[in-house]
Amino acid sequence: MHSDLARIVGEQYVLKDAPAEWTQDASIAMGLRGHADAVVLPATADEVASVVAWCYERGVAIVPRGGGTGYSGGATPAPVPGTAGPEGTVVVALDRLDRIRSFDPGLWRIEVEAGVTTQTIARRARENGLMFPVDPGAAEQSQIGGNIATNAGGPHCFKYGVTRAWVTGVEAVLAPGELVSVGGPTRKDVAGYDLVGLLTGSEGTLGIVTAAWLRLLPAPPHPAVPVACAYPTVDAGCAAIEAVMASGVVPATIEYLDAGALAAAAASFPGGLPADAQFLVVCEADSGQADVAELLEALGPGARRHEPRELWRWRDGVGIAVTAVQGGKLSEDIGVPLDRLAEGITGTVEIGLRHGLDACSWGHAGDGNLHSTFLLRPGDREQLAKAEVAVEELFDLAVSLGGTISGEHGLGWLKRGQLHKQWAPAAVRAHRAVKDALDPAGLFNPGKKTA
Amino acid sequence: MHSDLARIVGEQYVLKDAPAEWTQDASIAMGLRGHADAVVLPATADEVASVVAWCYERGVAIVPRGGGTGYSGGATPAPVPGTAGPEGTVVVALDRLDRIRSFDPGLWRIEVEAGVTTQTIARRARENGLMFPVDPGAAEQSQIGGNIATNAGGPHCFKYGVTRAWVTGVEAVLAPGELVSVGGPTRKDVAGYDLVGLLTGSEGTLGIVTAAWLRLLPAPPHPAVPVACAYPTVDAGCAAIEAVMASGVVPATIEYLDAGALAAAAASFPGGLPADAQFLVVCEADSGQADVAELLEALGPGARRHEPRELWRWRDGVGIAVTAVQGGKLSEDIGVPLDRLAEGITGTVEIGLRHGLDACSWGHAGDGNLHSTFLLRPGDREQLAKAEVAVEELFDLAVSLGGTISGEHGLGWLKRGQLHKQWAPAAVRAHRAVKDALDPAGLFNPGKKTA
Ligand SMILES: Cc1cc2nc3c(=O)[nH]c(=O)nc-3n(C[C@H](O)[C@H](O)[C@H](O)COP(=O)(O)OP(=O)(O)OC[C@H]3O[C@@H](n4cnc5c(N)ncnc54)[C@H](O)[C@@H]3O)c2cc1C
Ligand SMILES: Cc1cc2nc3c(=O)[nH]c(=O)nc-3n(C[C@H](O)[C@H](O)[C@H](O)COP(=O)(O)OP(=O)(O)OC[C@H]3O[C@@H](n4cnc5c(N)ncnc54)[C@H](O)[C@@H]3O)c2cc1C
Repeated sequence: MHSDLARIVGEQYVLKDAPAEWTQDASIAMGLRGHADAVVLPATADEVASVVAWCYERGVAIVPRGGGTGYSGGATPAPVPGTAGPEGTVVVALDRLDRIRSFDPGLWRIEVEAGVTTQTIARRARENGLMFPVDPGAAEQSQIGGNIATNAGGPHCFKYGVTRAWVTGVEAVLAPGELVSVGGPTRKDVAGYDLVGLLTGSEGTLGIVTAAWLRLLPAPPHPAVPVACAYPTVDAGCAAIEAVMASGVVPATIEYLDAGALAAAAASFPGGLPADAQFLVVCEADSGQADVAELLEALGPGARRHEPRELWRWRDGVGIAVTAVQGGKLSEDIGVPLDRLAEGITGTVEIGLRHGLDACSWGHAGDGNLHSTFLLRPGDREQLAKAEVAVEELFDLAVSLGGTISGEHGLGWLKRGQLHKQWAPAAVRAHRAVKDALDPAGLFNPGKKTA
Repeated sequence: MHSDLARIVGEQYVLKDAPAEWTQDASIAMGLRGHADAVVLPATADEVASVVAWCYERGVAIVPRGGGTGYSGGATPAPVPGTAGPEGTVVVALDRLDRIRSFDPGLWRIEVEAGVTTQTIARRARENGLMFPVDPGAAEQSQIGGNIATNAGGPHCFKYGVTRAWVTGVEAVLAPGELVSVGGPTRKDVAGYDLVGLLTGSEGTLGIVTAAWLRLLPAPPHPAVPVACAYPTVDAGCAAIEAVMASGVVPATIEYLDAGALAAAAASFPGGLPADAQFLVVCEADSGQADVAELLEALGPGARRHEPRELWRWRDGVGIAVTAVQGGKLSEDIGVPLDRLAEGITGTVEIGLRHGLDACSWGHAGDGNLHSTFLLRPGDREQLAKAEVAVEELFDLAVSLGGTISGEHGLGWLKRGQLHKQWAPAAVRAHRAVKDALDPAGLFNPGKKTA
């Protein structure tokens, strides 16, 4: 295996012992570790195609790897015995496909290889008066290929849409090792089925993205002004969110923290919070002062403006602050219709209570996307077992509210086999049929995103 | 057949003689006529499922039909002998699925059945301070099911995105007759593969859309102000378009007309046009007076504001005005990257010249979407034959410019079997594999959107 792969990508780009940092991702926080027979770092799309062809011919599983920031274990190869390909597993890391192939600021578009980080794209856009609005939390490490593979979102996707909205074309290696392009720099294209969309969010189970054509947007002409307000109850906070929606303004983002998340993070909130704060709403307007005033009014008395950098630095630390409470957590990313948000939030806490677990949530309120979280003491296996049962109930809750078991992190390994909770049998069959059609040998990221 | 179908949908909703108005669509302008054994008008999604199950069991082809405004013959059943299902063809018209199932203006969302017209949705949104930005030209007749099936766009999709951007969930009948829902009112969902996106633009070849969850947006706070400017050459006009893109403004729309289109339509242009006008650019800003001023400056001297209703009424008449020149036309909808727009426009005219045909184009400039058109005398078969060759060259041109053979109307019947011009063999195989996976018997709209 190693010498064959070395012939394709070069000796030093086959990591023989598959070092740990290449066989785990952000799901390591939940203890997930993987195994691979080799990690390869191709330099070009053609090398990716050759590697895939080599693997596909031999029954070797292929695990695409971006920045490794995914939370569902999608980039963790063969996490348990029996989930590798029949002839082993190769991790294909896209790090070296890091070229910006072309950039036309005047035409609002950029063509990047899969390994370019989200932050690099955002920075290049910003330096040219443009914006790439996809802003998941680990942008300095996540790659555009990973963003596409997970259809990543972030706080500002409420106004601007998730990754799919910004991809006009994809270059990818499909089974059994063929490099194809669908879409491109053209902004509208309805000739074929939407394979760009199908690859987006497919979590490496249908092929490897090697490059993408992205749309960009002129930077908003007005500075982004975050405004925040605390409330004494979940219902009061959710009513404020609905008031924001009804204000006529399109906020750039609508985020929330519940009481448990605030208990962990309130101390460092810029300017402090009232003692009775049990719920926080953060919005932002990037469409002028009149809209900022509207948001302040919709949020009600107590709402105030914030300095963006300060506020977002604080917001970025919420996950870490929540983890710090007991040292660990089991966190999910369910989504619900906006009018069921309060039920999702209180339901999360209630499920925790039933299992003797402290629970809380925060997240992208405007999109109904909750980071529902059970606090854990590291190494406490009994508590972890309880949390795993609680998570099942959480998924049932999301589905019963008309929502989804994954609003942004995808199924990956950790939520594999759960789609049937949410989709009718015929839709699950369609999901499987699509997988079988594009990956007949089942070698792209086996065991992940199964229905 | 008829009595079985009558048992499902009721006697009077099986149109036995398949009247001509149900077996043709807007492609009748190119002489396309179809044949069906029956036209059925189910009243509910369950009835649609029963009809599909009945057909699928018996090898009867199923042709979904919306408003019949499609330009590529997608809703025209069995246009030539041998393209029906082995046991005949049934048109399934969605007209009676015309309920708005729910509407939550405060939450920016609406759930509509497939047969609700585009205009009805836009009107309901507008009456509630919201906007449904998908605005194809025949909105009073086209249905949301048809818009989804073609992933329709319109002038304002430059800023707001095409249909896909506004659909969060779809209810559909898949083979062999199963009603499923994917997505819903939740705005973010990455649990399964993007079947919503796959059905969007699938032109009735993968299933029948029976209902959809749509996102809406608060109406823009500023009135939409169209501005227009004429130029003496294609290059000057395209340079102005690039200046608009570089202005920092996000226009709601950027449209153009070339010399031939202007020759047909200039006489009725509101306020008249300079005698040497060979190219017209129309933009619109709905983001305030400062942006309107920026657009006027980017367009250059001669640019002026227009009254929206007057300007858009004129713009809506361009297609008819062009047809009127010789009485007929063969019109396509190629797309190109924005920096190749001038080449697409001059190339269209050159192709016409080579075949002795008057040619012109107009369209959605910002999206690089041209309505490339060859003028025809009705009934002149020789001229039509030339135009059909010219169209092939036009598709080659679009592909050679890095674009698409269809920016908005889809392949349907008229462009069937042409995707291979644009996609590599492996991508074409993926396209076919998806079709076979979801429609194993090949009964959904046979012969349409083939690769
Ligand atoms: C602190 C933190 C905050 C986060 N915040 C957000 C957030 O706000 N919103 C959000 O959506 N996510 C968030 N995430 C999750 C994660 O950042 C995103 O899912 C991101 O898009 C993953 O990108 P990656 O390059 O790290 O992918 P990886 O973790 O390497 O891989 C993720 C999945 O994509 C596949 N994949 C990767 N690259 C490719 C490729 N080139 N071709 C095909 N498949 C590929 C992998 O096989 C795997 O299944 C956060 C993660 C962290 C650690
Ligand atoms: C004057 C005029 C202007 C136009 N302008 C534009 C424009 O600006 N932009 C644009 O994109 N298009 C435009 N079109 C084309 C057309 O209006 C759009 O494609 C529209 O979306 C078709 O909708 P419909 O309901 O009429 O579909 P139909 O013509 O009835 O069907 C179109 C295709 O969709 C399938 N279909 C219809 N309903 C369903 C369903 N419920 N489930 C599954 N499949 C279904 C049919 O089988 C067929 O393949 C224009 C057409 C006209 C006549």
